Amino acid sequence: MRIDGRDFRTIWLDDGGRDIWAIDQRRLPHRFETVRLTSAEAVAAAIADMTVRGAPLIGAAAAYGMALAAAADASDEGLLGAARMLEAARPTAVNLRWAVERMRARLAPIAQADRPAAAYAEAALVAAEDVAVCESIGRHGQPLIQAARKPGKDRIDVLTHCNAGWLCAVDWGTALAPIYKAHRAGLPVHVWVDETRPRNQGASLTAWELGREGVPHTVIADNTGGHLMQHGQVDLCIVGTDRTTRQGDVCNKIGTYLKALAARDNGVPFYVALPSSTVDWRILDGVAEIPIEERGADEVTHISGLDDLGEVRTVRLTPEGSPAANYGFDVTPARLVTGLITERGVCPATEAGLAGLFGGEERAA
Amino acid sequence: MRIDGRDFRTIWLDDGGRDIWAIDQRRLPHRFETVRLTSAEAVAAAIADMTVRGAPLIGAAAAYGMALAAAADASDEGLLGAARMLEAARPTAVNLRWAVERMRARLAPIAQADRPAAAYAEAALVAAEDVAVCESIGRHGQPLIQAARKPGKDRIDVLTHCNAGWLCAVDWGTALAPIYKAHRAGLPVHVWVDETRPRNQGASLTAWELGREGVPHTVIADNTGGHLMQHGQVDLCIVGTDRTTRQGDVCNKIGTYLKALAARDNGVPFYVALPSSTVDWRILDGVAEIPIEERGADEVTHISGLDDLGEVRTVRLTPEGSPAANYGFDVTPARLVTGLITERGVCPATEAGLAGLFGGEERAA
Repeated sequence: MRIDGRDFRTIWLDDGGRDIWAIDQRRLPHRFETVRLTSAEAVAAAIADMTVRGAPLIGAAAAYGMALAAAADASDEGLLGAARMLEAARPTAVNLRWAVERMRARLAPIAQADRPAAAYAEAALVAAEDVAVCESIGRHGQPLIQAARKPGKDRIDVLTHCNAGWLCAVDWGTALAPIYKAHRAGLPVHVWVDETRPRNQGASLTAWELGREGVPHTVIADNTGGHLMQHGQVDLCIVGTDRTTRQGDVCNKIGTYLKALAARDNGVPFYVALPSSTVDWRILDGVAEIPIEERGADEVTHISGLDDLGEVRTVRLTPEGSPAANYGFDVTPARLVTGLITERGVCPATEAGLAGLFGGEERAA
Repeated sequence: MRIDGRDFRTIWLDDGGRDIWAIDQRRLPHRFETVRLTSAEAVAAAIADMTVRGAPLIGAAAAYGMALAAAADASDEGLLGAARMLEAARPTAVNLRWAVERMRARLAPIAQADRPAAAYAEAALVAAEDVAVCESIGRHGQPLIQAARKPGKDRIDVLTHCNAGWLCAVDWGTALAPIYKAHRAGLPVHVWVDETRPRNQGASLTAWELGREGVPHTVIADNTGGHLMQHGQVDLCIVGTDRTTRQGDVCNKIGTYLKALAARDNGVPFYVALPSSTVDWRILDGVAEIPIEERGADEVTHISGLDDLGEVRTVRLTPEGSPAANYGFDVTPARLVTGLITERGVCPATEAGLAGLFGGEERAA
């Protein structure tokens, strides 16, 4: 997408054809910086320290990390060592392991001399496939935004939670892809951006990427969406999902469930955008079956921002001695979801709905 | 209530019988400081700069401000001037005007020489009445906490939003009064404290006052309550209200409505604690009839906290150029409220329920 008029992806190949560039997401939203990654070790470090984050982007970065490894040492031992190091960078990232395994399977049967070129080609394919999936989600979601337009209102108000934008993918994003498509098609879309405490991915990343693309938006406290929906100020909600069950329950950033409840109470359509790779066909009941990660309390008790001297600084919000709890995600039951926007189209959030778009081969995966 | 073992109120008369002391709430939760107020002017300044805040406390402070005015100049002109100055300190505070008018009505018919003593007595009465109302709310609410105790659970989990504790009143508070009563009665109560963005009254004031009294509590992001309720980790909710309609709709801090929706979806009792003075008998439908204050965007885009050098510092959270919106309150419809806890007892959140406790004389007020 565009950053103040110039096209970017979150990760790209250097003109020299060897090194990799990425946006340093740790500096956002207060500074835009890019980093050159010259080795698999550098890619692993960038994944570990969250220079790059977001499941699809981590997968693409790992693929490019394997390409850099192949350029340095394309032996079986060299690739195995790089694979282990990359996988250890974020042990719980499913997409990371998937991408590394895909690269190893592609390179294993090839003569060592041919591996570097094949590795760069395969990594480019991983990235291109992600872009295609996200763009397709955008294409299928755009008509829903158009359909939500209210007669007599001069803008279409979309509410989103957390960051499911292009910064977490290679381009387009998931929940924001339909919004970008609608905006580029000239629809008067305006986005209510939940700040998304405790990590504030909405206030920092979503607001930043919408601003750079020129999409009108307004940051709100997470408490605000219900009031806006009571007063007709939200025409539809679109959020992402980290994990989707066979029946369409969605596990997304903590607080998503509260917005889905408010949407139902006020008759506002509530859509979830997802690549089918997030569907976990083995599980049915998300509330019962998905364990919710507990993260460090310091994300609740402390917060970082830019001080008046232009320095990023961390401050404590709570009294000394008050404990805090930090649950990363919640589950929104399928009954609250109007529809799922996937790369193959929009379907009801039901077992039959998902089965209608995705056949047996995906379920076996 | 207690601050680390010592009993405090938010406002009190100096041992000398003339000056007034108050907790400086601008310094909380990072510093506990008290201020001596020696004139009506000082009281007005403390109200204006939020050294004292919360409707009941502002009323008591204004009453003491009139007492200080009477001690300095008990003439009709002197009292009128003080009344105008105090009322101008927070022009929208209903309780402030009510307290000032009550003081003027009490003092007007009295000989000038007798006014100072009468003024201090009346101010003490205003404060004592507030304490009695809040304590009564606590007494009526405590059995609801006891009743919510689940067999096999070793604690009773109460969720609250914003600060409706003793810091906004003279003592006890409203929503926290039943919790303090339950804790002092030996019930194993634990409080989930919504941080309450954007002004974070939960993370700062509620966490602070619960901690000083020794009530077990955990601060959470506002996004978290739904997840906790889905998993049986909340036994009941108790919140306050700034304004209550005749049919029991409650206008409270933004985000209250979202918690009420989650409570209904999960069968968790949702109670609202209120002095009957918050009931506005003229209005019925809160969502349609109560205008919601929009506050400055900087409360969303910026936040203050304690840095690692012990200084309170403000940082910016959002990207430059991203606008923000800041709605202060939302309305929770009565259909989502399990019951109203008032100084006269608990009633259904309905017109008949309120009428059963409060007769014609209150409605005329």
